[in-house]
Amino acid sequence: MIQQTYPSQLLEKAVSEFAKLPGIGRKTALRLVLWMLRQDNADIEQFAEAIQELKHEVKYCQKCHNISDTDVCPICSDARRDHFTVCVVENIQDVMAIENTQQYHGLYHVLGGIISPMDGIGPHDIEIDSLVKRVGEEDVKEVILALSPTMEGDTTNFYIYRKLSASGVKISVIARGVAVGNELEYADEVTLGRSIINRTLFEEK
Amino acid sequence: MIQQTYPSQLLEKAVSEFAKLPGIGRKTALRLVLWMLRQDNADIEQFAEAIQELKHEVKYCQKCHNISDTDVCPICSDARRDHFTVCVVENIQDVMAIENTQQYHGLYHVLGGIISPMDGIGPHDIEIDSLVKRVGEEDVKEVILALSPTMEGDTTNFYIYRKLSASGVKISVIARGVAVGNELEYADEVTLGRSIINRTLFEEK
Repeated sequence: MIQQTYPSQLLEKAVSEFAKLPGIGRKTALRLVLWMLRQDNADIEQFAEAIQELKHEVKYCQKCHNISDTDVCPICSDARRDHFTVCVVENIQDVMAIENTQQYHGLYHVLGGIISPMDGIGPHDIEIDSLVKRVGEEDVKEVILALSPTMEGDTTNFYIYRKLSASGVKISVIARGVAVGNELEYADEVTLGRSIINRTLFEEK
Repeated sequence: MIQQTYPSQLLEKAVSEFAKLPGIGRKTALRLVLWMLRQDNADIEQFAEAIQELKHEVKYCQKCHNISDTDVCPICSDARRDHFTVCVVENIQDVMAIENTQQYHGLYHVLGGIISPMDGIGPHDIEIDSLVKRVGEEDVKEVILALSPTMEGDTTNFYIYRKLSASGVKISVIARGVAVGNELEYADEVTLGRSIINRTLFEEK
């Protein structure tokens, strides 16, 4: 590819900044920057301030490490939720995804990553120690492991299981099986195999 | 779709700002914002500053209306370029695309849009008057119309042609035909028809 020449260094600088964002190439970055240039000054200020404010003022919940505007997040401080159950997730998006299902009413514990030796992420780089401490100090009856069913997810699940097994807390893992709405013939063997092994009694609903 | 609940208002605000960008949905916006949150403070400042600086300090070339750091852009002030030829384009990206071909050595005139009654853009909302003035004042011998071959592009071409025809300047339009590397059978009829009508003498190269 020919090196793109920008008519303005200010433009090139802004494009370079946008192109750092994950999944945004230089062409998209240019389109975004030129779009921004057509907006009012006030809109640009608002955009820049929203990012800076978030970066400077955001907090992480002292209990579950989810993003929060307060020291303890709204979920952890909600007395109507089941405080005996803690669902372990990789990140903030996973909390939002599970909240969206409206099927879970317990608390969360956000690891902030999963164990991945390839990326140099060990057990002490993520919030596992604080989970063990939390289970020891609070009256937690069940820990649900809700990590992605990948090699890294399984490794992390296993590590947490070993760390918590002495505490006597019930440890469960989210069901793995054929996704709802998917054709059976396109499910991979491992998933299909597991879904047979972990079959459940048929219930009329 | 269930209304997404964000764990933090600051997060929601930043996501809303990102989601205003063209082609960025709320899910992508969230991913971008959480990525930004993991960057250093200095990187965030640099990002915000690059946009603000561009917005406040950017200039548009007095001659061709291309984006520029100076009053007259590097292309217009380049004495080695052909100042008798002016290529009319819709926007800055088009200048960059043509520059990338390395086949054109004249000047440009950036309209900043095309005539589009559907979007409420008339001839006086874009830089047509300044083009007519420029052709009258400068020693322009040829105006090349390089707008997209769409209905709006054709309308704009025709409007400019009518405005300039009295001046006696040569007016040309970029060739329309089968794209290089494309299979003939997949070319649409209009394009293929035009490419036959506008056939050129075969030259050994």
